[in-house]
Amino acid sequence: MNGIKIIGRGKYIPKNEITSKFLAEKFALTEEYIYKVSGIKSRWYGNKEDTLENMAYKASIDAIKNGNVNYEDIDLIIVATTSSNQMMPGISYKVQALLNIGNCMCIDILAGCSGFINAFDIAYGYIEVGKVNTALVIGVEKLSTAVDLKDMSTAILFGDGAGATIIAKSEKVKKYYSKIKSQGQEAEYLTYEVGKKLIMDGTKIYKYAVSEVPKIINETLNDAKVNIKDINNIVLHQSNTRIMNSIAKKLGLHKEKVFSNIENVGNTFCASIPIALTEINLIDGEYLLMCGYGGGLNTGCIILEI
Amino acid sequence: MNGIKIIGRGKYIPKNEITSKFLAEKFALTEEYIYKVSGIKSRWYGNKEDTLENMAYKASIDAIKNGNVNYEDIDLIIVATTSSNQMMPGISYKVQALLNIGNCMCIDILAGCSGFINAFDIAYGYIEVGKVNTALVIGVEKLSTAVDLKDMSTAILFGDGAGATIIAKSEKVKKYYSKIKSQGQEAEYLTYEVGKKLIMDGTKIYKYAVSEVPKIINETLNDAKVNIKDINNIVLHQSNTRIMNSIAKKLGLHKEKVFSNIENVGNTFCASIPIALTEINLIDGEYLLMCGYGGGLNTGCIILEI
Repeated sequence: MNGIKIIGRGKYIPKNEITSKFLAEKFALTEEYIYKVSGIKSRWYGNKEDTLENMAYKASIDAIKNGNVNYEDIDLIIVATTSSNQMMPGISYKVQALLNIGNCMCIDILAGCSGFINAFDIAYGYIEVGKVNTALVIGVEKLSTAVDLKDMSTAILFGDGAGATIIAKSEKVKKYYSKIKSQGQEAEYLTYEVGKKLIMDGTKIYKYAVSEVPKIINETLNDAKVNIKDINNIVLHQSNTRIMNSIAKKLGLHKEKVFSNIENVGNTFCASIPIALTEINLIDGEYLLMCGYGGGLNTGCIILEI
Repeated sequence: MNGIKIIGRGKYIPKNEITSKFLAEKFALTEEYIYKVSGIKSRWYGNKEDTLENMAYKASIDAIKNGNVNYEDIDLIIVATTSSNQMMPGISYKVQALLNIGNCMCIDILAGCSGFINAFDIAYGYIEVGKVNTALVIGVEKLSTAVDLKDMSTAILFGDGAGATIIAKSEKVKKYYSKIKSQGQEAEYLTYEVGKKLIMDGTKIYKYAVSEVPKIINETLNDAKVNIKDINNIVLHQSNTRIMNSIAKKLGLHKEKVFSNIENVGNTFCASIPIALTEINLIDGEYLLMCGYGGGLNTGCIILEI
């Protein structure tokens, strides 16, 4: 069975900044309050040209350039999103057309905010058994179309963006451990139906995240027989700073040990982890831990050797 | 690496029959004409209670009973659909809640009419590498909500329904070959965006299907080193009889060798193959070939030893 290596990382963040100052005025709050409850200063909204496929394409081009990847080597495009209304074809097919790659396999995945973890894990599986050599794994969201701009609790959090990670077969078999669990029984904590608005019960999501995320991380560490202190990069879904700090504390980590770019990006659901991956150093032989969580409910953790 | 076996098959077809007599009157055609161009006598539309999750749940219960499967053994629920507007949670999460199965992994897949093939192949991969023991693979559609009832060319074809197949780890490693290819460049042949109507260019879809489907089937047969004459059950996506007969002819087969239930079910996109699986005999050691095709464009073929 094959190992994998990450060979390219890219992102696209749209240009229309939604500042906390703007939101503070809108909701009669202060910028400080918004920062205190979310850890976010800026989110970014796409314009008309920033469709899901265009944002995903731009992040893909960035990843292709970053890794100096040959377009034609890509034999799987897999997209995780929650904010699409395009059921057929999916965004992956539109990215395939924009990249003009013939006959690769394209799949869109719906698995809540942590869909990138599912997409990455599916791509890994195809590479592991030798059916795919190079996979383009994308997380993309246009949450500005889903958010209720009258709902302070979600409007302060969510933004648009895309991240793309290219993974390929590695000659060397490297450690890879994943664990993904869903809880459809708690689905109503965070929902989005096309034509309606995104609805979140923030208190319930907080309680779920600070309980389930440390649990799945510890289980995956156990499977991998790796100590959390030996993980070089810990990339959580960038949900909000309070959740991320609570998770760090429960793991016995200083909050600085857990990567964060949420201050300047906001919470971009499926795009948050691949965007974060563009901002860290990945060094051969080191360990990367990624953990997604959110709507579904769906929680997924991957530990891999770089 | 593990093999797989199919351990349960189920379906749900709603009760509201849309006869060709009704459609013939509506479009000023004859029943004979509709039958000649589609091979369909009846399609079935769901009522208000026949939501995607309810239809998927009923097909799952049918499959669970058929295979005498223990609910709690299911550790992956994967749903292929094209007619959902529920982006978070997906249908798989709702089925998990209805079945009340804790902590299994849930994923929805968007891959056009042939999404069941992708879902089956992903489930197979998880079982093959030992991460999943038992997977519930569902295809479900409520195309009555997507079809333009003023568009004769699609209204005569499409219906609602759900099919569920349960696959599990097999002690015996059995032959399994799959090939899936997408052509996002031809996406506009068949599209569906939530809030709009399904649009199909029937002529282009016909040309694509009768060219690409025999090709991918022959390629998969080559990989498997199996002659088509040795395949015991050939289950194509039930698109329309003209396409299916043309594919049979191109494969050098009498049309009776290719399974068909379209006359009484209609074209149910992702549900068509798992519904068909409930109507065939699967005998140990025999070969089953499944081939999906349609919007995306996406074409997928699986050959497996039962």
